[in-house]
Amino acid sequence: MKKVYLGLLGFGNVGSGVVRILRARKSLLRNKVGCELALKKVCDKDLTSKRDIYLPRDMLTSDVNEILNDPGIDIVIELIGGIHPAKEFIMQALNKGKYVVTANKALLAEQGKEIFDLAKSRGKSIYFEASVGAGIPIIKSLREGLAADRFRHIFGILNGTSNFILSAMSERKIDFNQALTQAQRYGFAERDARLDIQGVDSLHKLVILVYLCFGKLVNLNDVFVDGIQHISLLDVAYAKELGYEIKLLAIAAREQDELELRVHPTLIPLEHPLAKVRGINNAIYVCADLAGDLLFFGPGAGKTAAASAVISDLQDAALDLQAGLFRKRFFAIEDMSIKRLRRIDQTQSRFYIRFMAVDQPGVLAAISRLLAKFDISIASVTQKERKRAKVVPIVMIVHEVRERNLRLALKRIAGLDVVKEFPVVIRIEQI
Amino acid sequence: MKKVYLGLLGFGNVGSGVVRILRARKSLLRNKVGCELALKKVCDKDLTSKRDIYLPRDMLTSDVNEILNDPGIDIVIELIGGIHPAKEFIMQALNKGKYVVTANKALLAEQGKEIFDLAKSRGKSIYFEASVGAGIPIIKSLREGLAADRFRHIFGILNGTSNFILSAMSERKIDFNQALTQAQRYGFAERDARLDIQGVDSLHKLVILVYLCFGKLVNLNDVFVDGIQHISLLDVAYAKELGYEIKLLAIAAREQDELELRVHPTLIPLEHPLAKVRGINNAIYVCADLAGDLLFFGPGAGKTAAASAVISDLQDAALDLQAGLFRKRFFAIEDMSIKRLRRIDQTQSRFYIRFMAVDQPGVLAAISRLLAKFDISIASVTQKERKRAKVVPIVMIVHEVRERNLRLALKRIAGLDVVKEFPVVIRIEQI
Repeated sequence: MKKVYLGLLGFGNVGSGVVRILRARKSLLRNKVGCELALKKVCDKDLTSKRDIYLPRDMLTSDVNEILNDPGIDIVIELIGGIHPAKEFIMQALNKGKYVVTANKALLAEQGKEIFDLAKSRGKSIYFEASVGAGIPIIKSLREGLAADRFRHIFGILNGTSNFILSAMSERKIDFNQALTQAQRYGFAERDARLDIQGVDSLHKLVILVYLCFGKLVNLNDVFVDGIQHISLLDVAYAKELGYEIKLLAIAAREQDELELRVHPTLIPLEHPLAKVRGINNAIYVCADLAGDLLFFGPGAGKTAAASAVISDLQDAALDLQAGLFRKRFFAIEDMSIKRLRRIDQTQSRFYIRFMAVDQPGVLAAISRLLAKFDISIASVTQKERKRAKVVPIVMIVHEVRERNLRLALKRIAGLDVVKEFPVVIRIEQI
Repeated sequence: MKKVYLGLLGFGNVGSGVVRILRARKSLLRNKVGCELALKKVCDKDLTSKRDIYLPRDMLTSDVNEILNDPGIDIVIELIGGIHPAKEFIMQALNKGKYVVTANKALLAEQGKEIFDLAKSRGKSIYFEASVGAGIPIIKSLREGLAADRFRHIFGILNGTSNFILSAMSERKIDFNQALTQAQRYGFAERDARLDIQGVDSLHKLVILVYLCFGKLVNLNDVFVDGIQHISLLDVAYAKELGYEIKLLAIAAREQDELELRVHPTLIPLEHPLAKVRGINNAIYVCADLAGDLLFFGPGAGKTAAASAVISDLQDAALDLQAGLFRKRFFAIEDMSIKRLRRIDQTQSRFYIRFMAVDQPGVLAAISRLLAKFDISIASVTQKERKRAKVVPIVMIVHEVRERNLRLALKRIAGLDVVKEFPVVIRIEQI
C-alpha cells in the first residue's frame, strides 16, 4: 500500500484536531483515498505546551525546514495563520513541488494572487476548505458543485464570534461588552477580538468567496467594512420590534457589469433563514442562476469542525497527487463581464436610523424636513412616550436612498440643537 | 484541445436544461474542465414534441444503441427515470466502458447494488448529484466534504411537491386537495402525484443519503413510510398553535449499533430551521461528529436546478476520465459497527394525537385512563369549546412512548362508543 506523507505546520487547536482525526479514522481514510495518509512531521515553535494528544518526540520539530526540505513529504498543511511567515512557508513548499492545504483566510485574501500564480506555474493545486465556514463544505460546493452557475448575490454570516455576540444581545438582552466577555470566557473570541468584531475576518472570507464565485481577487481596500462594536442593545431591541434581526453580513451583489462588496451590521427580516442563525454558527446564502437560492449552514468554529475541512482537503490532495492530476478548475475563472466595483457612496439601501433627541414639540418636524430636503422618504417612525426622560430615541426606517444623500442629511440633522448624539445608522437588506 | 463526448438519454425538462447549459456556458466549462464537453447524440423515444431548444436533426435519435454502441461517446447521461429500461441502459453503458451520470433516484435506491457492483468491477465511477436535492450539492458534500465524519442523524425535507402542499396548507389555510391541485397547476406535481405525496420519492432519496453516510444500501421494505395524504388542515392549524410545523421528514437516526430509518409527516418546533423551509424547497440537516450540525437548503425542483447538478457531475466525470482516475471513494465504505435496523415498533417518539369525540362528561377521563393503562404520559391537552358541535376534536401531546404501546392504546380508545373516528397520530421530532 502506497503512502502519502504529510507535514503539519502549526500544532494548535485545529492542528491537534487534524492529528487526532488522522489517527482515529485511519482505516476509513485509507479505504476512501486508496492509500495511507501518513503524518511524518509536525512543526511548531512551541514544543513544550501540554496538548491533548500524544506525539512521539521525533515527530515534533521547531525547525520548519525539516518539513519544507524533506523530499519525502508530499503535502504540507499550513495552520499557523497570519501573513508572515505562513506565506514564505507556503511559497517554499510549492517551490519544492509539494501540495499545500491551508486554512489561512487572511493570507489568501490579502496576498492570494502571488500564491495562486506560483501554484499555477508549478502545476500544483491549492486547497483551502477550512478557510471559510469551518466544516461547511462551501468552498467545494462553489468550486465544484455549482460549476456552471453564475451568481447574483452572496450573503454570508461568516464570523462566529460576532454572531455569538449579536445572538446573545438579541436573545438574552445583555449588552455588547457583556456578550463579548462571555464569548471570550467560552473560548469563542480571542483576548484581542478586533479582527472579529470589526469585520476584518468576515472581509477576508468574503474576498475568498468572491474569488470563487466571480474569479476576482479584489483589493481589501475596495470593500466597505463596518463592524459590530457600536451596536447597542437598544438598536437590537428596536430592530426586533420592527420585525428584524441585526446580523453582521458580508455581501456581494452583482448588478449588470458592477459588483458591490460590503461587510456591515444589517437588519434582515426575522422570517429570513439568515435571521435564525444563532450563536457561533455561520451561514452562506448564495443566489445562483441555475441551482437557485441555496443556504449552507453550520458551526463556524470549533477545532473538529475546521479539522473536518482540512481532512476533506487532504483526501482531495492525496487523490489528485496519486492521479498526477492538476486541478486547473481550482483556480477560479475570471468573469470578464464585471467591469468595476461599485463605490459605497453609489449604493442604495433602506436604512434604520436612531436619533437621540430632546423631547419637545417640533423635533420630529425638524428632522423630517431635513430628510425631505435630501429626497429621503420615511417608511416608519417609532417614538415612545418616556416619563421624565429629557432625551428620547426616535427610530425611523427610510426607503431606498443613496448612501451619499443619507450622509449629507444626517450631518445636517446632527447639527440641530435638539439632536444630542450622532444618529445611529444601520443598513436594511431585503433578502 | 481534446474533447469529451457526451450521449444524453432522455430529452425532457432536465435534459433540455442540460443541453442549454452546455451550450450557454461552453467556454466557462472548457476553461474549468480543460477540455470541451461535446454533446454528440441525444436519444428520446419522442422526437416530435416541440422543445424550447433547437438541436440539429442528426443529433437526435430514438435508437438508444446509437449512443450505447458508439465507442466515440465517453459519458452517458441517463435522465429517463424509472427502473426499466434505464437500468439496462446504464448497465450496458458501464459494460462498454463508459462513465455514467444519472439523476435516477428510484433506480439507485431500488437496484443500486447491481449498478455499483458493476461500476466497481469495470473500474468506473458513477455520478448522481441530481438524484437528491436538485441543485444543492449534497451528494458531493457528503461524499467528499465530510469525508471522515460519522453521522448521528439525517433529517431531510426531500420532496418538493409534498413540501409545497404542506406549506400551502399552513400559510394559506387551504386544504390538502386544493393544495395538491395548485401544485399540479404550477407544474410542481405530476398528474399522478402518488410517488410524491405517499412518501416514496422521499424514501428513495433517503436510501441514497443513507448509502453515502453509512455505506449501507438498505432494503426499501425495511423503512417505515407514511405520506401526507391524510394530513388535514385541522391538524396543521392545531400543530401551529402548539408551536409546531408539520413537514414530511425523511429520518435516519443512528444509536449505538442500530440504525432507525423512517419517512413520515412530523411535527417539528417552529423555531427549527427545517420548519422554515417553504414551497418546493428541500433541506437536509445532518449531524456530523466532526463538522457539527449542518443544513443544506435550496430548491428541490425546477429544470435548471437539477441540470446544474448534472453539469457538476459532468465536470467531475470529464476530469476523472482525463486523469484516468477511478474514484474509489465514490463507493461508500460500509460502517460495520451498525449491526441492525431498528424496527418501527421498537422506536420511541413523542406524538401528537387528535381524537374526535362526543362532547359529553367523562370522555376525557375515559381516554386518559386507557392511555395511563399503557404507560403513556400526557404532556398537554387542548379541547376547545364548540357551540352546538356534537363531535369535537381533543388534541393531545404525549411524552416519549414506544410505538407499539401507542398502537395498542389507540386501538382500545378507538373502540370506545364516544370516540367517533380512528385517532389521527403524527410523530413529534425534538430536533
